[in-house]
Amino acid sequence: MDVRQRLARNLRRLREAKGWSQEKFAFEANVHRTYVSDIERGARNPTITVVEKLAAPLGVTASDLLAN
Amino acid sequence: MDVRQRLARNLRRLREAKGWSQEKFAFEANVHRTYVSDIERGARNPTITVVEKLAAPLGVTASDLLAN
Repeated sequence: MDVRQRLARNLRRLREAKGWSQEKFAFEANVHRTYVSDIERGARNPTITVVEKLAAPLGVTASDLLAN
Repeated sequence: MDVRQRLARNLRRLREAKGWSQEKFAFEANVHRTYVSDIERGARNPTITVVEKLAAPLGVTASDLLAN
């Protein structure tokens, strides 16, 4: 599993654990809803600054979002 | 400390623990020497695929390179 797939899996798991839709998470992270969908399909290769932005509303770190 | 600074600090620490110069590490990671220098100054915002590429020759994960 490459790093984009790990991010995809972790983001979906943590988002769902909060009971958030992709729309709700997108609002919280201040990104577009389609961007969340792309990340959760492993279809994006974001910068580490974006990963940190996605991590913040979930209460985790960028490192956590890439972990196995 | 933001995620770019954590990457900078971790990369330098792990590279030096191997006794590798920036030139040697750049060769092992197949990136340009000036790119390594930029990363270690926190002056770059790499994608997660690049972070994985930097992690591989150090025997760590992308997640490890961004950890506190």
